[in-house]
Amino acid sequence: MDEVKQLLQYAFQTNNALTMPISAPGSAGMESVFVNLVEPGDKVIVCQNGVFGGRMQQNVQRCGGQAIMVQDEWGKPIDLNKLREALQANSDVKAVAFVHAETSTGVLNDAKALCQLAKEFDCLTIVDAVTSLGGSELKVDDWQIDAIYSGTQKCLSCVPGLSPVSFSELAIAVIKQRKHPVQSWFLDMDLVMGYWGKGAKRAYHHTAPVNSIYALHESLLILQQEELQPTHARHLKNHLSLKAGLEKLGLEFVVDQDYRLPQLNMVRIPEGVDDADVRNRLLGEFNLEIGAGLGALAGKVWRIGLMGCGSSQKNVDYCVASLNTVLN
Amino acid sequence: MDEVKQLLQYAFQTNNALTMPISAPGSAGMESVFVNLVEPGDKVIVCQNGVFGGRMQQNVQRCGGQAIMVQDEWGKPIDLNKLREALQANSDVKAVAFVHAETSTGVLNDAKALCQLAKEFDCLTIVDAVTSLGGSELKVDDWQIDAIYSGTQKCLSCVPGLSPVSFSELAIAVIKQRKHPVQSWFLDMDLVMGYWGKGAKRAYHHTAPVNSIYALHESLLILQQEELQPTHARHLKNHLSLKAGLEKLGLEFVVDQDYRLPQLNMVRIPEGVDDADVRNRLLGEFNLEIGAGLGALAGKVWRIGLMGCGSSQKNVDYCVASLNTVLN
Repeated sequence: MDEVKQLLQYAFQTNNALTMPISAPGSAGMESVFVNLVEPGDKVIVCQNGVFGGRMQQNVQRCGGQAIMVQDEWGKPIDLNKLREALQANSDVKAVAFVHAETSTGVLNDAKALCQLAKEFDCLTIVDAVTSLGGSELKVDDWQIDAIYSGTQKCLSCVPGLSPVSFSELAIAVIKQRKHPVQSWFLDMDLVMGYWGKGAKRAYHHTAPVNSIYALHESLLILQQEELQPTHARHLKNHLSLKAGLEKLGLEFVVDQDYRLPQLNMVRIPEGVDDADVRNRLLGEFNLEIGAGLGALAGKVWRIGLMGCGSSQKNVDYCVASLNTVLN
Repeated sequence: MDEVKQLLQYAFQTNNALTMPISAPGSAGMESVFVNLVEPGDKVIVCQNGVFGGRMQQNVQRCGGQAIMVQDEWGKPIDLNKLREALQANSDVKAVAFVHAETSTGVLNDAKALCQLAKEFDCLTIVDAVTSLGGSELKVDDWQIDAIYSGTQKCLSCVPGLSPVSFSELAIAVIKQRKHPVQSWFLDMDLVMGYWGKGAKRAYHHTAPVNSIYALHESLLILQQEELQPTHARHLKNHLSLKAGLEKLGLEFVVDQDYRLPQLNMVRIPEGVDDADVRNRLLGEFNLEIGAGLGALAGKVWRIGLMGCGSSQKNVDYCVASLNTVLN
């Protein structure tokens, strides 16, 4: 358990003592952050430019908080000016929440700048790093992130079912000063800390999914071995290779390259091409699964993941060759 | 997924359409039942005769409900008369909740009679079957259980991290008629049903821990192959064998045999024997872990599990021989 914590601290680039995997998927990791930090009546600004900002809004509201939404177009990054206006227009905002890497669109939001702006207004910063951890640069301490959650099944290439989280000293202080009990017993960090926390006596809280934790340990060792910067560089290199191959097939990227995620490649479906038919043939004939569009983008785009161990030249070549066969 | 549902329906002895594994440990399964069925102000009678009744109380309260506690001595079964008195003394009780097999004491509560009594007063019935599923007789439909949760790592001998649950048609109707949104997004059964429910389109809700679900599938196939009654009979036979061996060593059972769990054997620590020393030697020298006492029973008892595949004559012999060496 101590090794998993240390390896996660490296992955998150943090010294936060409260850094550990929640014993459930990323959606529960998201919920662990909101149920612990949001009390009834609290105002939270949620910047949304994809599916998962909407889930954050749900979480804030189900905690009895008030979610102030800052909306941006799906496929575009969060606009710092809009966040500034929202911060200026609302007093007593407790936290600013946003998704670092939007899995639904393939957009990388500027977490560093968003957190810096939130801190100008003395807000807590809450970041969804489900698709960024292990795939994109992420510096929890340097960027002043107070609470962050991720998933194991994206760029860590581990089994799904765990959600690495990290809470800053400030976030812990906020939790300790709560006026209302945390509405979730399972996700109450004050209880979880007794099991995972620094110097904890490993007091029984729930039965942890130990097999999955061993798997996470191994995947974090692999990340540590390759090191963060080379891992990010590999994701970028393979993305550029995929991009070259897809563009030869006439496929266009939706997201501008300035804020495009290398691990999540969203391309427009060419006119006249049947979305489901192509995906079904890829799966049935090539054992290759690519993602459908979500929400307003359903039927209009494909999302091709190149995450963790999956980000390899071999996979890029196979994907381009398979698409070439199916599309022609 | 459909096969896992069918196999769970067999294990629970139910036709409930909403029968599936929650993507998190038993504690989250417990929470899924309470957050969906309890609304602010609801009265729930919780019968407590061990650790886990206390956790139910916490859950009711964190949902804004009122927990009416019916207390019995730890190591004794829940007294039906006390429950009847509580039902008579309180109007508008929405649900009665109790633990079928108390892991903290080794007591089997009479779930059939408790549910029958609750139904006389038109209450929903909520049952914790973490340690009973696969080890003790359990008939969800015949006994009129409305909501039940279990764990995968006890008598199913599967990896920890999933919580099989089942909800009756009545429970689903209560959920559909809620006045307040379910406070947990992750555990909102109305959303989960879109992914796991009958005729569901498998709408994405969260990323399920698929590896663990495959493991559960296999463990449920093993249960189906051995069949329920022979499985229960094996648990009983190995318990009686352990009992004979332990009594030869002078160890006494705490729980009366009329309501003793075969899968969880609680014995008194003999006077003058150091609790931790014995457990540490068993673990260090024999690779054998036995449980410590919990709560008021800490330091006074040991809890020896004979669950699922672990319930074998070989394990009984090894446990008795190891204890014999360490104690003499």
